Amino acid sequence: MGHVPTYELRPAGWVRSPLTDRSAAPKQGDEGAPPARIEVDREFAEAMAGLEVGATVIVLTWLHEADRGVLSVYPRDDVTRPLTGVFATRSPDRPNPVGLHVVTIAGIEGTTLDVRDLEAIDGTPVIDIKPVLGPER
Amino acid sequence: MGHVPTYELRPAGWVRSPLTDRSAAPKQGDEGAPPARIEVDREFAEAMAGLEVGATVIVLTWLHEADRGVLSVYPRDDVTRPLTGVFATRSPDRPNPVGLHVVTIAGIEGTTLDVRDLEAIDGTPVIDIKPVLGPER
Repeated sequence: MGHVPTYELRPAGWVRSPLTDRSAAPKQGDEGAPPARIEVDREFAEAMAGLEVGATVIVLTWLHEADRGVLSVYPRDDVTRPLTGVFATRSPDRPNPVGLHVVTIAGIEGTTLDVRDLEAIDGTPVIDIKPVLGPER
Repeated sequence: MGHVPTYELRPAGWVRSPLTDRSAAPKQGDEGAPPARIEVDREFAEAMAGLEVGATVIVLTWLHEADRGVLSVYPRDDVTRPLTGVFATRSPDRPNPVGLHVVTIAGIEGTTLDVRDLEAIDGTPVIDIKPVLGPER
């Protein structure tokens, strides 16, 4: 295939959360994540127009503490389960550790979003925000 | 905030599709995308263990033809609608143009997946594959 190109992600914002330890964070947002914030960089304020309190959105993050060399895992760290390829799991350790989080916007103030059900740890880079419903937007 | 780090995405595979023209591609996969393939790089074969025919998965792509400088758009290119921030739309033009596609696996042969409902154009880099259902995996 010759030379493989690479692409540069630039953080658009940051997670602010009381969660600071990856090992203590819930594996999914509906498993007890505390209220958190997304601080969008002011440079991207214009991109937030149309986000509304109460909306459910998809937040993509870069799981910066992930091990990108991991290709298979025991799901949910349960060694009684078969070793499974990371593309068939939600393991944060994977070649491109993009986190996908479905969150509800609880408040908006300037470029800060208050969100529910975000299980990423404090300081996690946010790379994109998308509406859950695609077709009409 | 000081120096902002950046992160390097490495393609894990590529979309193979009869769609070759971004302007002719459907905006969402359930709007008439033809059958397509994902050719995963052999280096990542191990990461595919556990993917099954019939499963619905989330495919993340890098929309390499996107304009990363666009912060607001007319949704669905409809200029009668209000100009909307890209974080409230599924516009491919956005600061980090990661595409999110919900597809069904129709076949698996080696490191090639036959998929339905993938609207990305031929040659689009695939950066991640995740199961739709999170909690149990």
